Amino acid sequence: MPTRRQFIGKAAVAGSAIVGMPSLSSFPDKKEFFVHHVYFWLKNPDSPDDKNKLIEGLKKLSKVKTIRTFHMGQPAQTNRDVIDRSYSISWLLFFDSKADQDSYQSDPVHLKFVEECSSLWTKVIVYDSIDI
Amino acid sequence: MPTRRQFIGKAAVAGSAIVGMPSLSSFPDKKEFFVHHVYFWLKNPDSPDDKNKLIEGLKKLSKVKTIRTFHMGQPAQTNRDVIDRSYSISWLLFFDSKADQDSYQSDPVHLKFVEECSSLWTKVIVYDSIDI
Repeated sequence: MPTRRQFIGKAAVAGSAIVGMPSLSSFPDKKEFFVHHVYFWLKNPDSPDDKNKLIEGLKKLSKVKTIRTFHMGQPAQTNRDVIDRSYSISWLLFFDSKADQDSYQSDPVHLKFVEECSSLWTKVIVYDSIDI
Repeated sequence: MPTRRQFIGKAAVAGSAIVGMPSLSSFPDKKEFFVHHVYFWLKNPDSPDDKNKLIEGLKKLSKVKTIRTFHMGQPAQTNRDVIDRSYSISWLLFFDSKADQDSYQSDPVHLKFVEECSSLWTKVIVYDSIDI
């Protein structure tokens, strides 16, 4: 296997979009991932204020303890027919199990995020995926 | 940071949907991720043969050297209004940069995958995201 194939993850620091600390010891038993990918379409996509409010809300949301790793993103420069780049924010989470994802959905931090931020978006699409 | 927040990645073995070897040494300089998420809708979604052909094609595709980490998935059991679970296969890739993703698009392995497998699907949606 090429040595370039490596982890994803990085200690959460300002400017870093991925959290996660590598742990060799936790690898051998890792068999399952629950991938929860959310795309947000803002009501006011050209408002930097609204975008920042959502980003700040997601930063708080990232503290939910069952989240294994997250990535917060925005559309890349790529542009082909099959690419949907109309969303404002991508919110990608990895959980260890469906149970952890279910717990996240009902976590008070998540409920507060929805309460505080749901007025910002007009559309959300979620794709939940499990290992094949 | 909670100790549960860790990397994603695992040496590619049968049954493992994520590739990647953790490398502590490569962390400190990691500042950028290019997330390429593809959803495939099969022409014959109820055909196990077609699904398996696509899975086998993606396994070969995963050998492209610029891929840092990948996850191959299928819809989870979750089911809410905002969830799209109509796709057949989720193909999630992490690259170190847009340049690496561009290289992947034109890699002979990728071109061969498209040639061999594109007849299997009727629709593809791609979301490319970069760090905020």
